[in-house]
Amino acid sequence: VANPSILILAGDGIGPEVMAEVKKIIGWYDAKRGITFDVSEDLVGGCAYDKHGTPLHDDTMAKAQEVDAVLLGAVGGPQYDNLDFSVKPERGLLRLRKEMDLFSNLRPAQCFDALADFSSLKREVVAGLDIVIVRELTSGVYFGEPRGIFTEGNERVGINTQRYTESEIARVARSAFELARRRSNKVCSMEKANVMESGILWRQVVQEIHDKEYPDVELSHMYADAGAMQLCRWPKQFDVIVTDNLFGDLLSDAAAMLTGSLGMLPSASLGAPMANGRPKALYEPVHGSAPDIAGQGKANPIACILSFAMALRYSFDLGDEATRLEQAVEKVLADGVRTADLMGPEGGTPVSTSAMGNAVVAAL
Amino acid sequence: VANPSILILAGDGIGPEVMAEVKKIIGWYDAKRGITFDVSEDLVGGCAYDKHGTPLHDDTMAKAQEVDAVLLGAVGGPQYDNLDFSVKPERGLLRLRKEMDLFSNLRPAQCFDALADFSSLKREVVAGLDIVIVRELTSGVYFGEPRGIFTEGNERVGINTQRYTESEIARVARSAFELARRRSNKVCSMEKANVMESGILWRQVVQEIHDKEYPDVELSHMYADAGAMQLCRWPKQFDVIVTDNLFGDLLSDAAAMLTGSLGMLPSASLGAPMANGRPKALYEPVHGSAPDIAGQGKANPIACILSFAMALRYSFDLGDEATRLEQAVEKVLADGVRTADLMGPEGGTPVSTSAMGNAVVAAL
Ligand SMILES: CC(C)[C@H](C(=O)O)[C@@H](O)C(=O)O
Ligand SMILES: CC(C)[C@H](C(=O)O)[C@@H](O)C(=O)O
Repeated sequence: VANPSILILAGDGIGPEVMAEVKKIIGWYDAKRGITFDVSEDLVGGCAYDKHGTPLHDDTMAKAQEVDAVLLGAVGGPQYDNLDFSVKPERGLLRLRKEMDLFSNLRPAQCFDALADFSSLKREVVAGLDIVIVRELTSGVYFGEPRGIFTEGNERVGINTQRYTESEIARVARSAFELARRRSNKVCSMEKANVMESGILWRQVVQEIHDKEYPDVELSHMYADAGAMQLCRWPKQFDVIVTDNLFGDLLSDAAAMLTGSLGMLPSASLGAPMANGRPKALYEPVHGSAPDIAGQGKANPIACILSFAMALRYSFDLGDEATRLEQAVEKVLADGVRTADLMGPEGGTPVSTSAMGNAVVAAL
Repeated sequence: VANPSILILAGDGIGPEVMAEVKKIIGWYDAKRGITFDVSEDLVGGCAYDKHGTPLHDDTMAKAQEVDAVLLGAVGGPQYDNLDFSVKPERGLLRLRKEMDLFSNLRPAQCFDALADFSSLKREVVAGLDIVIVRELTSGVYFGEPRGIFTEGNERVGINTQRYTESEIARVARSAFELARRRSNKVCSMEKANVMESGILWRQVVQEIHDKEYPDVELSHMYADAGAMQLCRWPKQFDVIVTDNLFGDLLSDAAAMLTGSLGMLPSASLGAPMANGRPKALYEPVHGSAPDIAGQGKANPIACILSFAMALRYSFDLGDEATRLEQAVEKVLADGVRTADLMGPEGGTPVSTSAMGNAVVAAL
């Protein structure tokens, strides 16, 4: 059989810099472990717009559908702020999510021991934190129709539609329950069922899937506003949180920030299984394109490296190799190697993006 | 002229307990300051449903339209969880907001000095924090049509509509800019203009109102997910935040929790000016009905008392009296009087709801 295939879409801002370090890791697996990936590269986001006038070329979309895993860096930058909505860098990413049908977005919010003091939260609130937010990624208000800016009488009206079908809710619920079984067997589902009918349906379907298929998993429901509160108050009460596209966007960003490890957090976006049994998959760091530090060798490549570790685990069935890579990262941190974003008040000299990547390779 | 009028809707759970303490304060103003309010009382939420089969009787709605200010306690409780959506306790509150057209919801997130150690955030991150979230309260996905649970093919679909008109955005923007002028002259507007057209319109209209009418106020825009992050990281960067109904729900709850003062935070919901020049207005604590401690004399009445202080300021033009009341609360806290929710790890004996109310009256 062919080697497992990877499409790298480094994107904008610090995307190419952090992805360069992932390529070193991929090279190490080839040279040292005989695990060879067929790697191709292409454009997404602002750089794709600059070249093709669209944030995702159809050829790139087609390639993404064929590979075993897409690795994405980041998209966006201030020079694209005034582009028309339809060609903004984000549309490239949203098109990938939608057309690959990547309905389950796993966003770990994990506090690395070496970094527990970096959080704006008290050490005891975040130390050891390890939760996962499972965010629905292909429906809801991100994609619902009708949408747009219309004229009504003599004024403009902005409209978006929150829309969830039973099967869309069911499949992401299953994904959360499956994940919970491999963790602490506990799921909290969040919506606004007290205000939104789509939230009522969400709650009902999650409960039904639970009762029929996962009665062994502990399930609770929480309104999303209370969820935001509880994440800030005592995040360790959670294990797996499942929620919709928009709530997941806010809640996972808040949770990521709480850990103090924003430059460290990976994510996986998974779809239905392909013919070979692997899910369609896209892996990307939680942080964005960080235009303010782009091109300066300051970015922390660890989130992108750990996204590749998730790819090893979820796309390539190489859980042991994923663990090896994660442990290499932990060792590097424990050794005190720090990019600029990880410098504490005690100071020290930060290493470059590239030096951090080299340190991880050395630790492997 | 008639005395200023107040309608008290104590509601469910701890609502009646905390409102009893506000009545003592109202009594004090009558007896000691010759400021007499015409006070009437009625039902809202679960208790209204129990009596009338609806969470807000039409007569109550009519009364609310006539008074100078409504004081609300809290609504909801587990015994109402399985009621039909249309008669849930929350619907009573939402009807008040909608029919009184209370489009501007002011939610201060303030960290009381005496309580800075109660936050899950580090002291230096929250000490002295004093920001206000201005949440649009009568539109957006809370009220947009179409909405409901429908059958499509052989499955259910849950639908809600996010909908904002230009004038709805303009009036809440004005309210935020006016507030900012009386504070640090700085507004940050939050939406998801990178994903939602309603967010694009929001951003445009806020910018237009700024450029035309409030060019002196410093205005910035932030995506709501980044806003959630920044609130958790360094909330003191903000002064006034203006955002839509749903984002405001999550962000203001997160912000309130961060302060460590949840039992302390009031809110004001303001509408357009009435014939007498006063805005239609409803005042309520940010905390909910807390059914777990209801009826036990444990609740902290300060949020409700401070909501009355906001009424003195915004509805009755009694800013000095509002400040007097706020200072009385601060004195009581500085004296170490604590309800159960304010007990730190160092322990001590909590006072009852009623004793806290008495202490505030004494401090007046
Ligand atoms: C870039 C943007 C479209 C995206 C989103 O809103 O989903 C981002 O915030 C994320 O969370 O991945
Ligand atoms: C009780 C509920 C309907 C309400 C809301 O969602 O607006 C509450 O959470 C609030 O923030 O006032």
